[in-house]
Amino acid sequence: MKSRLLFTVAAIAVSAAALAGPIEDQIRFRQSAYSFIGWNVGKIKAQVADKPDTYNKDQVIAAARAIAAAANSGLGALYGAGTDKGVGWKQTRLKPEFFQQTDEARTVGIAFITEANNLAKVAETGSVDEIKTQLGKLNDTCKSCHDKFRIKE
Amino acid sequence: MKSRLLFTVAAIAVSAAALAGPIEDQIRFRQSAYSFIGWNVGKIKAQVADKPDTYNKDQVIAAARAIAAAANSGLGALYGAGTDKGVGWKQTRLKPEFFQQTDEARTVGIAFITEANNLAKVAETGSVDEIKTQLGKLNDTCKSCHDKFRIKE
Repeated sequence: MKSRLLFTVAAIAVSAAALAGPIEDQIRFRQSAYSFIGWNVGKIKAQVADKPDTYNKDQVIAAARAIAAAANSGLGALYGAGTDKGVGWKQTRLKPEFFQQTDEARTVGIAFITEANNLAKVAETGSVDEIKTQLGKLNDTCKSCHDKFRIKE
Repeated sequence: MKSRLLFTVAAIAVSAAALAGPIEDQIRFRQSAYSFIGWNVGKIKAQVADKPDTYNKDQVIAAARAIAAAANSGLGALYGAGTDKGVGWKQTRLKPEFFQQTDEARTVGIAFITEANNLAKVAETGSVDEIKTQLGKLNDTCKSCHDKFRIKE
């Protein structure tokens, strides 16, 4: 866990590392990653909050593992310099502030990874209510980043 | 492993399950998931084939885990009836044959999951050459599905 966190911190801190491609690719991969994460968050939300009678433990575990693996995949490398402007699947909504408030960007990134990893654990061992609570903590980290660094639609 | 495979087989077989949303959402999430997978495949390819001097074990493990978790996330639920027509991020390239050759679709889906899970294991324990070989096996399953079920650009 510690090594994963350190790697991700490094990936967030070092912009435009070896893994980064052209700006449009970084934005498109970023939009893809968060859409994929959103799909999995939606599945868990449906099964532990909106329609708990549909709760399927294996599906929730698989979705939580997908979120955690995506969170730990080095998404920071997709935030290279200049990627607050450009079109991936669509125009990016990343604010320039992301590159000015680097400590804050790092903090929200680490919080997201931490809560995603916690969700993967709770999905395996926790009750539906505990999963719901942990999903709320993960959502708070998403919202925190969106409020600070994403242009409102 | 076995239970994961069974769940995924069920998800592929039962079209438009509880997890599926509107056709456009399914297509967009599908395109997002495979783009995210492609990004991670690209990172591994760069580090074990194109530029082996950049090989970073932690990064390759993280990418392989992301691919495996995505493969096991129940992507079959995003292949609901009617999703061979429609626009997600862009027009889908899924051929109608996917819904006619269900045994074959299931076979390629299982092959993809199997090789993705193997890649996650080899990334942790194998040599660069072994990871490269296993990545080739995974790529073969991608190509097999594309050749059968994806419209050429």
